[in-house]
Parts: sequence; structure tokens; C-alpha cells
Amino acid sequence: MAEFDLIEHIRARTRHARGDVLLGIGDDAALLQPAPGMQLVACTDTLNVGVHFPEHTAPAALGWKALAVNLSDLAAMGAEPAWALLALSLPAPDTAFVAELAAGFAQLAARHEVALIGGDTTRGPLSLTVTALGQIPPGAALLRSGARVGDAVLVTGTLGDAAAGLALAQGKLSGVVAADEAFLRRRLDQPEPRVAAGLALRGLATACIDISDGLLADLGHVCTASGVGAEIELGALPLSAALSATMTRAQAQALALSGGDEYELCFCVAPAQVEAALARVQAAGCMARVIGRIVATSGVRVIDAQQGRGFEPTRRGYEHFA
Amino acid sequence: MAEFDLIEHIRARTRHARGDVLLGIGDDAALLQPAPGMQLVACTDTLNVGVHFPEHTAPAALGWKALAVNLSDLAAMGAEPAWALLALSLPAPDTAFVAELAAGFAQLAARHEVALIGGDTTRGPLSLTVTALGQIPPGAALLRSGARVGDAVLVTGTLGDAAAGLALAQGKLSGVVAADEAFLRRRLDQPEPRVAAGLALRGLATACIDISDGLLADLGHVCTASGVGAEIELGALPLSAALSATMTRAQAQALALSGGDEYELCFCVAPAQVEAALARVQAAGCMARVIGRIVATSGVRVIDAQQGRGFEPTRRGYEHFA
Repeated sequence: MAEFDLIEHIRARTRHARGDVLLGIGDDAALLQPAPGMQLVACTDTLNVGVHFPEHTAPAALGWKALAVNLSDLAAMGAEPAWALLALSLPAPDTAFVAELAAGFAQLAARHEVALIGGDTTRGPLSLTVTALGQIPPGAALLRSGARVGDAVLVTGTLGDAAAGLALAQGKLSGVVAADEAFLRRRLDQPEPRVAAGLALRGLATACIDISDGLLADLGHVCTASGVGAEIELGALPLSAALSATMTRAQAQALALSGGDEYELCFCVAPAQVEAALARVQAAGCMARVIGRIVATSGVRVIDAQQGRGFEPTRRGYEHFA
Repeated sequence: MAEFDLIEHIRARTRHARGDVLLGIGDDAALLQPAPGMQLVACTDTLNVGVHFPEHTAPAALGWKALAVNLSDLAAMGAEPAWALLALSLPAPDTAFVAELAAGFAQLAARHEVALIGGDTTRGPLSLTVTALGQIPPGAALLRSGARVGDAVLVTGTLGDAAAGLALAQGKLSGVVAADEAFLRRRLDQPEPRVAAGLALRGLATACIDISDGLLADLGHVCTASGVGAEIELGALPLSAALSATMTRAQAQALALSGGDEYELCFCVAPAQVEAALARVQAAGCMARVIGRIVATSGVRVIDAQQGRGFEPTRRGYEHFA
């Protein structure tokens, strides 16, 4: 009865009481009571071994990250997360592995009051697919399509850290101070979805996206959806102290432009709203910074103001199957 | 840009207009308008290559089945399906494969007015995870936990066909008439989720489950959740003409008892409601049949009335990791 045993391990470790969960794990489907008048926000994202994470990643980090990447999508919509489902494929019924994975998932879920309401446990190469469901008042959702010429472009947090964390995990970066290494690897393994910042940007941001494929690629999606272009100021990219201490400024900027797996928010606001947006995001517990502006000419360009010229990045983002 | 190309293939082939989809594929998450006063029903199920289907299964069948197994879970709750998300892992960006898969998915989705509202396309061993969302009025959901001693146990359709279809696909069964083979393989590859039957059973069935692990295993889940037991009458198991023509009666009954992947509904009704349930399910376009009764003694027993004794099945159901 190993399958039911695994599900029980997951259920026991992810109990989170929400009054709107009428029936959680254990029947053919879950039964939920949406809040009256609210709209539903839904997304799903997969993490596959060897593609999204190396084979010996700590199971707690996997559980955390599989939920985090989905909560990040809800955050980019300005939605309040509520419920999640986890489809887990495992090569063998390793209960210790599943218990740790569930604990990592539960740690992040509890922080955002998300209830795990269902899932599936099957045999197969290690893979996690989470579906996250959130709620939002009508008209409040932050879309990719609302950016207007003249808007400021901002990002939360710092950029390039997760890419450096990956380089460390792959042994491509060495001689890094232990505390910096720990910071950068945590940024890769345990990203903090910017849920509070997304909520704070309701009614302010004209467009929003989370940075999963890299800043240039994701801002490019916003520009395409909005029918505009953008200019990014190279010197304005927010770099963490750990990243700056670990490599040259040019290397750090390159990672900040194209590194994936960041899960920071990139958003646009009208110029008159920049101060309000900065204050609200800060009140929500994270930093934001203006990094550029929306322009009429399509495409995303990087400007190096110090050199007084454009800058051509060598890599524009992460692309599956590329 | 192969990933976006694949998503576009899927989107183009699965367009289904629903007024309650405010934002479908293309942003960080989908935006939905739940019907006022309704409860939400959610489930997720994965199909992995080499585990749930052999490597060279037709992609259209995969797309159909990945949705079908989830709609079957909604059907078992008595829910009306509304929306679905598809997380697809592929070893390589094969656009023809994806187009066929999306077409198979769309064929079933259109039949049940389900909109594909989001998903993820990633690199990895072939795997499909669908999350299905449906709606139901408060108090109407069919649970596993409501069976009472004295209730009749019924099933929709016929049993054992998908197991025979699998035996055919694996070359373990031969000499079968072409029309019977086609029927049995279609029962495996393109199961019809009993959505209309589930809707028809609202207010009538005391408990309901879909048969994915096999009748004995799934009825066992109902008994455990309800704190009861069940007796099944061997001679009452509904067998298709194709199955009966293909093997001995004893072989067919063995498949009907323990064959997985059936996606018929097994449900319980009070004795006074049996006629009404049979009529309503028939009006919903499928057959149902009484196969046994709920008893106080825990466990599921099979009775061979012709032989006047109990019957011990050799295999009780499908278990991952067993």
C-alpha cells in the first residue's frame, strides 16, 4: 500500500486549516468554497529532474520551489494564493524523501496560508507539477498587456542571484565566501515568491510579470503583450552584495539581464505613481527599483549610460528546447 | 522560440469560448469568474510514459485520456466540469506530436464544454499532468464517505474492457475479432468520463467513486471512507459483448473485478432509490446495474451465487510502487 502511505505522509505534513476547504485530500476531488464576488486565478508549473534541478537537490528545496514558482505566478497577477495541488512522480516509494519534500512544501505553504487540497503520486522520473489557485477582486488583476509608453519599469529585489547560485551548484563558480555562497544558493533553491508585493501593486502597476526566463525575455513578453518596447539602464540593475562580491560588475550585470529562475516581479507604473509604488512594495517587505522605461519602439534595449551607448547582451534568456 | 511555438499550437487547437474565462493561456495565470454561489471542485492526475501508457501510444489518445481521467474524477463528485490546465513534458519539441495531442484533448474538452485555460510545456520524459476544475451547488457533491448499510452498489457501463484493451496492446491477447479489438482498445485509449451520469446522481447517490484502480480497490475506498463493507455478486458484473466474446466468463469476471483504467462510476443508493437511479443514469446516456450491497462487516467480498459460496479474486487492483 505504498502509494497511500506516501499520500498520507504528504497529507500529515501539509495540513493547513482553511475554512474554505470543505473537502481536502482523500476523495476523487477537493471541494472548495470561493469567496463571494471574487475571481479565480489559476496556474501550473512543472519541475523535472535534470532540467529544472540537478539530480541530488535536497527534497525540502524541491517541495518549496515547486510551490514557489507557482505562487510567483499568482503574485505577478496580484492574486492572493489560497489552494494548491501537487502531482508528484517518483522513481521509487522513498518515504523519507517524500516526507522531506512535503515539509519543504508545507513550510512555504504555511507562510502564505495555502492549503494543499489534492494531488497525484505516480511512478516515473522525479517530477513535480503544482497547480496553484488564488483569488482576486474583479478588475484588480495585473496583466502583461497594460504597459503604456512613458511608464517606468521596475523590479523587486535583486537580479542575477539565482543564476549565480546555479553556477555554484554546477561547480562553475568557486572561491566564493561561504556566507555569499549560502545566500546565492538559497536564492536558487528557496526563492521567495513576491506575493505581498503583488498585492501591494493592485491598482498601481499597469503591467506585471515574474522573472522566470530572465529579465530581458520576460520584459519582452510584457512589451509584446502591450504593443510597446522598453529601455533598460544597465547601471540601474539591482545587484545583491553577495553577487557583487563574487564576480565582476560586468559579469553580474550579464546574469541580472538574462538569468532565469529569479522569481522577482518586473512591473510598470505611470511616472506619477513611481513613488507610491516604491513605498507600497517596501511596506510589503521587499525593495523595488526603477530600471528603465517603456518606449514606443518594439523590443527591449539595454542602455549603458556610463559608456553613453547601447549594450548588446550575449544571451537573452532561458528557452526550453533551444 | 520552440516553447512558445508549442504553446501556440496547443492554444490554437483548444480554443473553446466560455464566458467565464476572463483571461486564458498567455499571461502568468488564468483569470476565471466562478458562478455565484457555486462550490469549486478540483483534481489533478498524471500520465507517465512507460507507466500509464506504452511509448508509442497515439498522441491524440494521450491528449484525450489525460483530460478524461480528470473529468472522471469530477464526474465521481457529481460536478460540472469547466476549466482545465495541462502541464506537458516532452523529450523534444515535436510540433506534429503536440498538434495531435492537443487535438485529442480538444475533442473531449469540446464535448464537455471545458476550456483549456493554462499550462506549462517543459523538456523531460513524456508526461501529461492535467488539473481539472468544476463547479457544484453547495451540498450536492457525491462523496466516498456516505454509503450506509443496506444501500445497493451499482456501476455504470461495463467492466473489464480497458484491462482487455491493455492485454491486446501488450500482445497478451490474440485471435480477437477486429471489431471487438477496436472496441476494447478504444475503451482503454479513449475512456468516456461519466460526467452526465455523475450529474444525474446528485441527490440520489449516497457515495460515488470512479473506477481507476479496479472495482474491488475503489469500492474498498468507499467502504473505508464510509466505515462499512460490501458484497459483490459475481454474476451481476456487467460485461460487454466484446469482452464476453474474447475470453472465458471466469477470465472476464476477473478483469471486471480488478482491472484498472475503467473510468466507470461505482456508486451506492438507498434501496428505495434504485429504480430512480437506474432511470436517471439511462436518461443521461449510459447504463447502470446493481452489482451488490453495502453490509456492516468491513472489506469487500465477492459472492458466487451460482456456486453458492464466496469467491477469492487473485488480484485486487492496481497499486503504484507495488
